Amino acid sequence: MSKAFTAFALCLTLFSTMPAFAASADERAQAAIDTRQGLLKVVVSYFGPIVGMAREQIPYDADVVKNNAEKVALLLPMIPDVFRNDTREFALETEALDDIWENMDDFTAKSKTATERALALAAATADGQEAAMKAFGALGAGCKGCHDNYRQQN
Amino acid sequence: MSKAFTAFALCLTLFSTMPAFAASADERAQAAIDTRQGLLKVVVSYFGPIVGMAREQIPYDADVVKNNAEKVALLLPMIPDVFRNDTREFALETEALDDIWENMDDFTAKSKTATERALALAAATADGQEAAMKAFGALGAGCKGCHDNYRQQN
Repeated sequence: MSKAFTAFALCLTLFSTMPAFAASADERAQAAIDTRQGLLKVVVSYFGPIVGMAREQIPYDADVVKNNAEKVALLLPMIPDVFRNDTREFALETEALDDIWENMDDFTAKSKTATERALALAAATADGQEAAMKAFGALGAGCKGCHDNYRQQN
Repeated sequence: MSKAFTAFALCLTLFSTMPAFAASADERAQAAIDTRQGLLKVVVSYFGPIVGMAREQIPYDADVVKNNAEKVALLLPMIPDVFRNDTREFALETEALDDIWENMDDFTAKSKTATERALALAAATADGQEAAMKAFGALGAGCKGCHDNYRQQN
């Protein structure tokens, strides 16, 4: 280890000030919340143009839909990873419901279903706009299935 | 479109209140900043356990290193995507330097190099701990190469 240590010293420096390595349990829980919200923000950023197309605010572009759906399909399986840190005991602001950690198997299954639907959307772009938008609807319903159960309703 | 519309009505409802669809240019720029910071937080969350192993705070686990390096390799190519929204004109708090948008080709190339190093780290786990930690050092240097040029130094 000591021989290799200098090799990644740079790397340690890079991350030493980041919240994942924060000292207190509260800071680590806040970092976990920020991380999971961050992941969902990236998902939303890839959804954005597709929603714009669905609303007919921007022209339909099959390549963009396919690319973005593929990116979403890479991100959704990370949801159970970033929710692994159980923050139920912390008095921190979050819309994540306790049910997530009480039903982690179902929560994970729902992210898997949504992932399959994202891949189905990418595939559906080969069959034209109507097929793609129908597949997008199914993906949206998949997202909603999880939000309804595991996210605080505003 | 109108026939398919009901199918994704659910989906539109889901995202209608999210910042990516915020009304003002400032709000959209802030959403872009939040999204890119979010992506990097997810990257850090996968790096975390590997840094812990490098510091000998937790035992080396080749499976975790491989899995996390593979996740990082999926995330790093998204960096140019989430930085596409040019926020130079906005008076918002960010550590992202203007050079990003002045050198987008180099910025993109650096994310590609780091991606290759993340894949090399995943592969190196087959060759034992020392090889993996050396590959992790190279990945860290790849991250630093981008931070040094494109992120405000604290």
